[in-house]
Amino acid sequence: MATVADGGEAWVIEAVRRRMGPPPAGAIGIGDDAAVLAVPGGGRILASQDMLVEGIHFRREWMPPERIGAKAVAVNVSDIAAMGGRPFALLMALALPGALEQAWVLRLLDGVAEAALRVGAPVVGGDTVGSPDGVVLDIAVLGTAALPTLRAGAQPGDWLVVTGPLGGSAAGLACFQAGAVWPGAEPLEAAALCRHACPPERLEAGRILAGHAHAMTDISDGFWTEVSALVDPVGLGAAVDQERVPIWPRAVDVARHLGASSSQPLGWALWGGEDYELLAAVPPNAWAALEGELLAVGVQAAVVGRVEPGPGVWLQRAGQRVPMDSASRGGFDHFGPR
Amino acid sequence: MATVADGGEAWVIEAVRRRMGPPPAGAIGIGDDAAVLAVPGGGRILASQDMLVEGIHFRREWMPPERIGAKAVAVNVSDIAAMGGRPFALLMALALPGALEQAWVLRLLDGVAEAALRVGAPVVGGDTVGSPDGVVLDIAVLGTAALPTLRAGAQPGDWLVVTGPLGGSAAGLACFQAGAVWPGAEPLEAAALCRHACPPERLEAGRILAGHAHAMTDISDGFWTEVSALVDPVGLGAAVDQERVPIWPRAVDVARHLGASSSQPLGWALWGGEDYELLAAVPPNAWAALEGELLAVGVQAAVVGRVEPGPGVWLQRAGQRVPMDSASRGGFDHFGPR
Repeated sequence: MATVADGGEAWVIEAVRRRMGPPPAGAIGIGDDAAVLAVPGGGRILASQDMLVEGIHFRREWMPPERIGAKAVAVNVSDIAAMGGRPFALLMALALPGALEQAWVLRLLDGVAEAALRVGAPVVGGDTVGSPDGVVLDIAVLGTAALPTLRAGAQPGDWLVVTGPLGGSAAGLACFQAGAVWPGAEPLEAAALCRHACPPERLEAGRILAGHAHAMTDISDGFWTEVSALVDPVGLGAAVDQERVPIWPRAVDVARHLGASSSQPLGWALWGGEDYELLAAVPPNAWAALEGELLAVGVQAAVVGRVEPGPGVWLQRAGQRVPMDSASRGGFDHFGPR
Repeated sequence: MATVADGGEAWVIEAVRRRMGPPPAGAIGIGDDAAVLAVPGGGRILASQDMLVEGIHFRREWMPPERIGAKAVAVNVSDIAAMGGRPFALLMALALPGALEQAWVLRLLDGVAEAALRVGAPVVGGDTVGSPDGVVLDIAVLGTAALPTLRAGAQPGDWLVVTGPLGGSAAGLACFQAGAVWPGAEPLEAAALCRHACPPERLEAGRILAGHAHAMTDISDGFWTEVSALVDPVGLGAAVDQERVPIWPRAVDVARHLGASSSQPLGWALWGGEDYELLAAVPPNAWAALEGELLAVGVQAAVVGRVEPGPGVWLQRAGQRVPMDSASRGGFDHFGPR
């Protein structure tokens, strides 16, 4: 019998999409960063949900509980940022093993509460249950957007824009997996761990991009996977210039520190997950204004490539282009072997 | 160091409430069945979330996956029913072990999809992740209500009304724990298992009750716990007439079948959890009309007691009243020893 691991994340998502059917009229459902919903009686909201599972998304010994709580909020809010929206409320479901120390739980809650306050979306409800094994933290976020920017909508000729450096989160994960703990790591490792543990908050950037972009998503599963998600479903392609990919500056030092190959930083940037920067397809004539608006809120965005009419996603370097198949190169598959 | 098990569910809920602070202006937050939220820009929604964890809320070998999926929807929708609302969308986060069979997952999704269709609330988004151990299914529900009926609001003299028989779910759980599996159990056991696996759907009853009730909740943690939750926080008390408690009719036979004591059916009805009937405090002069309206939608409600000005929750029988402390008698504590 085929297992979940055999099919991987793609199988699970496709199964959910097929089984759940199309969204109601006027709504955007499964497949975008957040659902767009008409509220009966008037109004429109965004809704998204992200679950963090101990042993899959975090290990308790890797980072302080405040960080786990804050990250759970941040990855949810990133889905609202990717629609150009504004979060207004969170729900939180928390599964806790009975043997867990109360002090740890209070610190986790502090992390959630502080992050919720910072993004203006209080926790208004949820659920608390027991767990036979690890901690599970599932947050749902509700938001609004004047005009949500969807994942679909890229047009040939659009420039691909990212809001910050890539690969830092994967570099941090590699440090954690090599035994680093935070706090306590030496400065280079600490910088990488922080890229993994402290996703950037791109709400303002998302709203600015929403004013110009044809399509947008956040980089949660890896840059390459997200570029494909932006162009494949609408029958388009993309070319990414390797030298324009904004690799996290310290990734080279981290790779050397870990004894990894010199191509590892590019690999982290292209296929590592959880950078939580935004990726948008914008018309070239919007770029000059956009770049300035983003700089004004402290975000240094970069043009990394363009949307093409033909299918396929390509990496260009030194005048040559290589086809890139994110599936064959890994990406982050939640259900694969770890 | 104190653990989560030391404090139990009450400690966790209180910790969440304190750490998360008060809800935003105009909103009802943590502590009611669902949160009531003003949508920025207009409109009001209800939101709730319930997490089912394998090994805590269900065992895979106990019931078919369709049932687990449908129950996850039902327990969420019950929170909307308890506000007198109407659900309009669901989010679903699903954590799956890689070794799980795909066929099992598809049947779980079928159960969710069918239940979602029945209650008119499609699954519009969520998350799918891996799990190192068991399955976790966390559903968030969004709804609307013209005038949500809160848990707070009971008045002295109100009658306590329940929408159906109690104790059947606990009887079913006892059968599961004694080794019964569904399907395949003999008829008496099957009837009990179904009370546990198939919560009633009380959306229509909830909306009817909302037209009359001062306060309402659903019976998820056990009748006695819910009566206390209705009156304790508003400084009131309650008296419940033992002979009026609508014990599930087959509980006596199930108790005999399992070799339990003759007082077990009352225990299941008072302290067992997960009956998912509604409990409301209604003004006595509303009862006659209310009873008829509920019967018209197939719901046979019962008056089981009344709200009193003094504190304390009492069980009355044969002209005597005994104080009942739900904490000392168990109730269902998610974090306690199992």
